Amino acid sequence: MDKTPPQLLIIFGASGDLTERKLIPALFSLYEEKYLPKNFAVLGISRSDSDDGSFRDQVVLQNKHIPETVKNHGLRKSFAEKVFYFDLGDSYDVDYSALNERIEALDKAQKTAGNYIFYLSTPPSLYEIIARNLNKAGLTSDNGGWTRLIVEKPFGYDLASAHELNDNLQKYFQESQIYRIDHYLGKETVQNLLVTRFANSIFEPLWNRNYIRHVEITNAESVGVGKRGGYYDKSGALRDMFQNHLLQIVSLVVMEPPIGSEPEEIRNEKVKALKSLRIMDDPETLHKNTIRGQYLAGESNGEPVIGYRQEEGVDPNSKTETYAALKFYVDNWRWAGVPFYVRTAKRMPTKVTEVVIHFKTPHHQIFRNSMVQNKDNKLIIRIQPNEGILVKFGVKVPGQGFEVERANLDFYYSELADQKIMEAYERLLLDAMQGDATLYARADEVEAAWEFVDPIVKFWQTDPNAVTFGYSAGMWGPKNADELIEGEYTWRNPGEHLTDDPGFCVIV
Amino acid sequence: MDKTPPQLLIIFGASGDLTERKLIPALFSLYEEKYLPKNFAVLGISRSDSDDGSFRDQVVLQNKHIPETVKNHGLRKSFAEKVFYFDLGDSYDVDYSALNERIEALDKAQKTAGNYIFYLSTPPSLYEIIARNLNKAGLTSDNGGWTRLIVEKPFGYDLASAHELNDNLQKYFQESQIYRIDHYLGKETVQNLLVTRFANSIFEPLWNRNYIRHVEITNAESVGVGKRGGYYDKSGALRDMFQNHLLQIVSLVVMEPPIGSEPEEIRNEKVKALKSLRIMDDPETLHKNTIRGQYLAGESNGEPVIGYRQEEGVDPNSKTETYAALKFYVDNWRWAGVPFYVRTAKRMPTKVTEVVIHFKTPHHQIFRNSMVQNKDNKLIIRIQPNEGILVKFGVKVPGQGFEVERANLDFYYSELADQKIMEAYERLLLDAMQGDATLYARADEVEAAWEFVDPIVKFWQTDPNAVTFGYSAGMWGPKNADELIEGEYTWRNPGEHLTDDPGFCVIV
Repeated sequence: MDKTPPQLLIIFGASGDLTERKLIPALFSLYEEKYLPKNFAVLGISRSDSDDGSFRDQVVLQNKHIPETVKNHGLRKSFAEKVFYFDLGDSYDVDYSALNERIEALDKAQKTAGNYIFYLSTPPSLYEIIARNLNKAGLTSDNGGWTRLIVEKPFGYDLASAHELNDNLQKYFQESQIYRIDHYLGKETVQNLLVTRFANSIFEPLWNRNYIRHVEITNAESVGVGKRGGYYDKSGALRDMFQNHLLQIVSLVVMEPPIGSEPEEIRNEKVKALKSLRIMDDPETLHKNTIRGQYLAGESNGEPVIGYRQEEGVDPNSKTETYAALKFYVDNWRWAGVPFYVRTAKRMPTKVTEVVIHFKTPHHQIFRNSMVQNKDNKLIIRIQPNEGILVKFGVKVPGQGFEVERANLDFYYSELADQKIMEAYERLLLDAMQGDATLYARADEVEAAWEFVDPIVKFWQTDPNAVTFGYSAGMWGPKNADELIEGEYTWRNPGEHLTDDPGFCVIV
Repeated sequence: MDKTPPQLLIIFGASGDLTERKLIPALFSLYEEKYLPKNFAVLGISRSDSDDGSFRDQVVLQNKHIPETVKNHGLRKSFAEKVFYFDLGDSYDVDYSALNERIEALDKAQKTAGNYIFYLSTPPSLYEIIARNLNKAGLTSDNGGWTRLIVEKPFGYDLASAHELNDNLQKYFQESQIYRIDHYLGKETVQNLLVTRFANSIFEPLWNRNYIRHVEITNAESVGVGKRGGYYDKSGALRDMFQNHLLQIVSLVVMEPPIGSEPEEIRNEKVKALKSLRIMDDPETLHKNTIRGQYLAGESNGEPVIGYRQEEGVDPNSKTETYAALKFYVDNWRWAGVPFYVRTAKRMPTKVTEVVIHFKTPHHQIFRNSMVQNKDNKLIIRIQPNEGILVKFGVKVPGQGFEVERANLDFYYSELADQKIMEAYERLLLDAMQGDATLYARADEVEAAWEFVDPIVKFWQTDPNAVTFGYSAGMWGPKNADELIEGEYTWRNPGEHLTDDPGFCVIV
């Protein structure tokens, strides 16, 4: 708690959904558990005609995203007194002198020592405008206290726009002041990838091309696009999930051991990992190694659901992908020749995110009679749900001879005694408040991710051969995605087994 | 079942405890599960004045070691009809012509094709006598069918006597006809050591000095010597358990991968493993690396129990060990520099047999702040009870930073679906009936084990400095045994934690 200095958190776009749903509940939870410094305040900024009282009502006192308990009624009231509102007027592109005065007054009254975090919960198109006006008003440099800027994804929609966004922010803020939030990195199970790899002498020696045959990463959602159709149709699965969350996971699986656990040590290795992904930019490779799909009408949890093109806000002729599967290689000593298979999709049979490390078959088969299908060892890291680790290994079939069958070594995070697991936003906000950027994306990291994704996006958008396959909602994606994985292997499809999709089709 | 040819099993010492308690129940169970050939019979031989009828009553129809079920009443009757008895008269050292006639008559009547197994369930002092007389009567050579000999441990009480015993048996039988039974090798979990090591690409690469710090094997019994005091006092823990059962486990942990799973391929590697144990024959090493103890009065399962010297049949001034702990090394490429710690004892707090593979600390500690005691990875192979495998590994402590805590990956054999696990004697008898000697000890194997054990036994018996330490029944042995294990490590004492033994004492 002493690690968190007095400070003022200023949220731009405070009337938006995120503030009420995630930010304030996370802050309240930190307050409840005494992680916040004594001298702390929140200033919400928006163009809505509101005031401290109404804002407090909306985001604290009446906020249904803060669970009501017997204990927290009094706490809500005292927390609400730390929450303020400032109406910016008609536009974000105005003179911030009045805002500056309000901030200085609050800082003095709340004794927050001139330490400011600006949290931009606005469309990315406003980032440059807000940063510029903060700068003009003298609010971006560290005078007296420190100043930090948190921005939400998307960090660009391609490499060029990501680069431009970074440039624009860096005109007014030092890179060390900028915190790009990716809530996937706030998940314990994602961070635990590093501990699994580097704090265990049983896993570390095996983590390379000598022992690993291939790596599989699945991010499946059972939901469709819901109310996000308008946004999603311009983005697609590759931009919405793969470029950020999934490449973050890839970088943690791929990275070399950092020399220590300092933020820059870890972030340097992650950037190096992303830069080592082999860029696919020729049509032949892209055609062979990338598959996109779009869900058709089907079933979800036993209920009939509509197809993607029928969703609200979606172009009825859309070819946007709700399913993306890639095969790629990593060009470095550790991973040479090891294929990575990564997929992300909506309207899958179940909600699951997991990393599967497929170990090679033992070089010499002593027990020749073993009849087990798919008998190789696997390490399955369950990011969500059922957070934990599963090792698939071989044991002797009881009885004569030496037949081998598959067994499970299983660990669930929930077995840990009395460990309250922080919600991702809670954890990430606290880190930013303490100046720990380990779990935030750096400019070069974001751009390295785009370097890999950009040619795929371009190919899908422009190449006449880049078709979008249809798949029935509630199935494991287009059938031909199975052919990505070579040899006798297929995707691991955890959870319930559904009947096969009757066939596959091309969306026209 | 076709693998088991017609045959006649002839048990010498059939009126003894083993026949009623283990052999006949195992055979009945094989019969019940249709593993026995159609043409099969048992001939019990002893010096008791009995006949087929009384013997059938005793070992089959009234045998309380055969569980009674609704189904098996009829089966008991039909099985009993395959059981016969022959009274040898006053001595085993007689003319076996009459026995020969009886065997030939039975063979003809039961159509057992001249295939005979002689099972010696007698004191070892009779082995040579019986073998000689069988030979004299023309019963040891394969005429028409085949002939096998099964002998029970102890296989000698030191190297010289073991060598003599092997010589005596080999005068009348080929080594390939001799089956030395060690019921520990009949245990699924012991055999599974080979599968764990050689059928899993996640364990095989780690199984050597580069990744393993030390190996610990514990065999603890909670019982005392019971009614075996007379025998035990002349034997001691080292001869009774270590020379056979524990060195069998050691050889499976230590051995190089065999080229295949043929019996001789596996047995060759086991012999090589035993020959690679570094023999301790200087008093200084023996004094430092071997510890013997004897239980004093104490508690067992909450009840007061007497000390070893007060047990029936035990010399009141006995220094015989009921606890033996050894530290030793294995002189080969795989294990150079890796200490093995092996202990066996009676009157421990719990009954457990397990192998613990202690992996080395990761070479580079990235997460410097981790405060976990004893944080290295461990693979624990539970031979009994709770048969299975446990991996102790590190996971991230939920919350900020990268602290590491211990977690368990757990597998229980009982999770395997519907696998009836054969009792050890059942499995081993069936193997012998099929001519599979994989799980039987070969002459050179027994002698290699004695080569290692002999100097320790001699040292304990003759060196004035070789003291026997006392330990209270129900405790984890003499306190100084902890000092065998160097560094920050101690024995893993599974199960309940007891208060410490108040101190340690030397038995005088």
